[in-house]
Amino acid sequence: MSIRNARHPFYDFCDEALAGIREQGRYRTFTPLAREASRYPVYEEELPNTDIGREVVVWSSNDYLGMGVEPEVCEAAISAIREHGAGAGGTRNIAGTSPLHKALETELAALHGKEAGLLFVSGYVSNQASLQTILTSMPGWICFSDRLNHASMIAGIKGARGSTTVIYEHNDLADLEAKLVAAPVDAPKLIAFESVYSMDGDISDIAGTCALARKYNALTYIDEVHAVGLYGEHGGGVTERDGVAAQVDIIEGTLAKGFGVHGGYITASAQIVDYLRSTASGFIFTTSLPPSVVAAALASVKMVRAQNWRREKMFERVETFRAKMRSAGVPFTMTPSHIVPVPVGDAERCKVISQRLLNEYGVYATPINYPTVPHGTERLRLTPGPYHTDEMMDDMVAALKILLTEVPLAATGTTQALTEAA
Amino acid sequence: MSIRNARHPFYDFCDEALAGIREQGRYRTFTPLAREASRYPVYEEELPNTDIGREVVVWSSNDYLGMGVEPEVCEAAISAIREHGAGAGGTRNIAGTSPLHKALETELAALHGKEAGLLFVSGYVSNQASLQTILTSMPGWICFSDRLNHASMIAGIKGARGSTTVIYEHNDLADLEAKLVAAPVDAPKLIAFESVYSMDGDISDIAGTCALARKYNALTYIDEVHAVGLYGEHGGGVTERDGVAAQVDIIEGTLAKGFGVHGGYITASAQIVDYLRSTASGFIFTTSLPPSVVAAALASVKMVRAQNWRREKMFERVETFRAKMRSAGVPFTMTPSHIVPVPVGDAERCKVISQRLLNEYGVYATPINYPTVPHGTERLRLTPGPYHTDEMMDDMVAALKILLTEVPLAATGTTQALTEAA
Ligand SMILES: Cc1ncc(COP(=O)(O)O)c(C=O)c1O
Ligand SMILES: Cc1ncc(COP(=O)(O)O)c(C=O)c1O
Repeated sequence: MSIRNARHPFYDFCDEALAGIREQGRYRTFTPLAREASRYPVYEEELPNTDIGREVVVWSSNDYLGMGVEPEVCEAAISAIREHGAGAGGTRNIAGTSPLHKALETELAALHGKEAGLLFVSGYVSNQASLQTILTSMPGWICFSDRLNHASMIAGIKGARGSTTVIYEHNDLADLEAKLVAAPVDAPKLIAFESVYSMDGDISDIAGTCALARKYNALTYIDEVHAVGLYGEHGGGVTERDGVAAQVDIIEGTLAKGFGVHGGYITASAQIVDYLRSTASGFIFTTSLPPSVVAAALASVKMVRAQNWRREKMFERVETFRAKMRSAGVPFTMTPSHIVPVPVGDAERCKVISQRLLNEYGVYATPINYPTVPHGTERLRLTPGPYHTDEMMDDMVAALKILLTEVPLAATGTTQALTEAA
Repeated sequence: MSIRNARHPFYDFCDEALAGIREQGRYRTFTPLAREASRYPVYEEELPNTDIGREVVVWSSNDYLGMGVEPEVCEAAISAIREHGAGAGGTRNIAGTSPLHKALETELAALHGKEAGLLFVSGYVSNQASLQTILTSMPGWICFSDRLNHASMIAGIKGARGSTTVIYEHNDLADLEAKLVAAPVDAPKLIAFESVYSMDGDISDIAGTCALARKYNALTYIDEVHAVGLYGEHGGGVTERDGVAAQVDIIEGTLAKGFGVHGGYITASAQIVDYLRSTASGFIFTTSLPPSVVAAALASVKMVRAQNWRREKMFERVETFRAKMRSAGVPFTMTPSHIVPVPVGDAERCKVISQRLLNEYGVYATPINYPTVPHGTERLRLTPGPYHTDEMMDDMVAALKILLTEVPLAATGTTQALTEAA
């Protein structure tokens, strides 16, 4: 018998894959940034191999309203830690359901005008677990999925073996209808889409989508991750703003962006929630969110529902920033949302500009590269919020104006091209 | 054109599925329990429709060592909230990597003697994302999976389209070898298993499994979720205790059980971690863990590595409890781990005993039913820890002795049988 002690081929595979990723300029490095709660959006950047930190103004946070630094939200987390400890200690079924979990689920259901809510450890998991469970519940499901849906929805849809996926063109209701018409009348159908698409900042036609859903008897599932807290009279998202929440069967959201904390959820009818609660693997077999996270999220959702000023302030700040960009002649993509994409065009240029913004100007805007967006559409994605001052804006606009000129598109593309140009 | 406005069939499907679940006695109700950090394992049970709480001693927590109520751990979380706020505000790539995240990844790598570590939002996600990503990386992967592997591993393995899954009998190395021999020599292979199987409390033969892995050149992936913090000189798990950590390619763990906080991780060689960091959807497309969770976990891992007394105390408590059960003649399953399963045999009996323990004796032991364990093997699962006193043990043993006699096995099985017998 021959004893083989070879190195497993996966090691070489990883080495090669990483070399390829580096060559394409999309090797991921994470800038270590420590948020200063009392000075948001100011962070401290940890300088490599030192104990020294440098002040940075962050323009890419998804804590859009700054709820994560609200004293009431932080105090809710702190008192929950003092009362209940740092973790939940069990799954929802194994001593991991606190009254706080139930209260937050009730609050979220009320926010969206639904019968019930269900918490997950993240928005990613809420999408993946819910869609996968629904689409494997009955035989023959057909899922109509917007082409630009988020990776977490795709994970759930792809994970649903036995179901069929039909991708329709982004926000294209004519294409969606053509595909609905072509599908067997009796197959159970689901339309999965988002409200605010976070990388492009566009907003879907929810009423139009729901009209098609009614016409072809499809279930509707919407991801409002980048809208909850921000849109609608009470922060119920675009479904609230457009008055269409009741037309959508399942509304999914996160507690980690507009609400500034952590975790994900769905809201829907009682039986749908109950069914997912009883059967979704990603809900059942995992430690529930720490009571402190739930307490903070509950405080945040309550404040966001009751108070409009942060939303108003955010939109005012976004408009002011756009006006400053416009008058300085810095290109950006106009969107109907709070998101300000600055097109850059390739991975290496995107990284260089982001790095120079950080090193030379003390401002941080994440480079958004493949696989988050398609090759060739690399961008900086700016999210001005209530705490970005006019002065911070002027600094950012000035820095962008310089760098977008100094770092030309043609000079990059691959590391080699960059070297040749330099 | 006919406008159809039917109720979607999924609603009826859910109603029917739930009726079936209720009939089988496995409708899930979660007892709302608020942990009292200063009195662990004492919790407060919220009584339905009142503001009144009742004291309950919990015997089912997975915060095995009580690290979640350690003052140092809680203080670490609290000061991180004061400094950095309640949430991370972004994905790892989008301003969501704090120096704390990096420090915890380094600490976990050191705990397991590996080159690198990678954090995920939960142990569930670490398993699902890592296994799915690895098993779709190269063509032709064959995954050898222990029959009793956790749902999160199964989710990752099943999710890896294009790979082949071979299930081997639980902890059966002869069967594993027979299946390895039968597989094509050149296919990339992975063996996925756990160290402590939490529902049965048995422990796998890691050295034996790794010997087979070397012989057949398979990558090894171990879930140490119920062992990290508890086994080994520094809490590195059974791989540390058995001196075999270096033989396992990927060690996965959670921060939510022995470490008492929240989150999951893997540790492995630099290139494997780097590859997963760059490509695993479940790692990339989700908000990173809140700095406070990371700070608490970091404090916990450091304490657990340095201090042996909690582990020793836990095992002493487990032995004392078993001795008391034995001398009272209360049946339990003897295991080589810290877990004390009490066989009950069917879902309804399990629920009734758990409910009566709670209502009549003020002690809580979760009923473990299908789908967590197979039908017919329903059980209570007890986890005595450092803070269970002799008196608490005497109460629990006395209560179990009475209820296991009073609630007979034959009387149940389905709700109908229960009704007939009652
Ligand atoms: C559209 C969309 N859905 C879901 C998620 C996942 O939410 P979470 O960060 O809570 O996991 C994200 C981003 O992270 C997202 O952009
Ligand atoms: C064996 C095993 N692996 C993984 C997990 C998931 O870990 P987490 O609770 O951190 O999601 C669990 C339980 O929750 C488990 O029992």
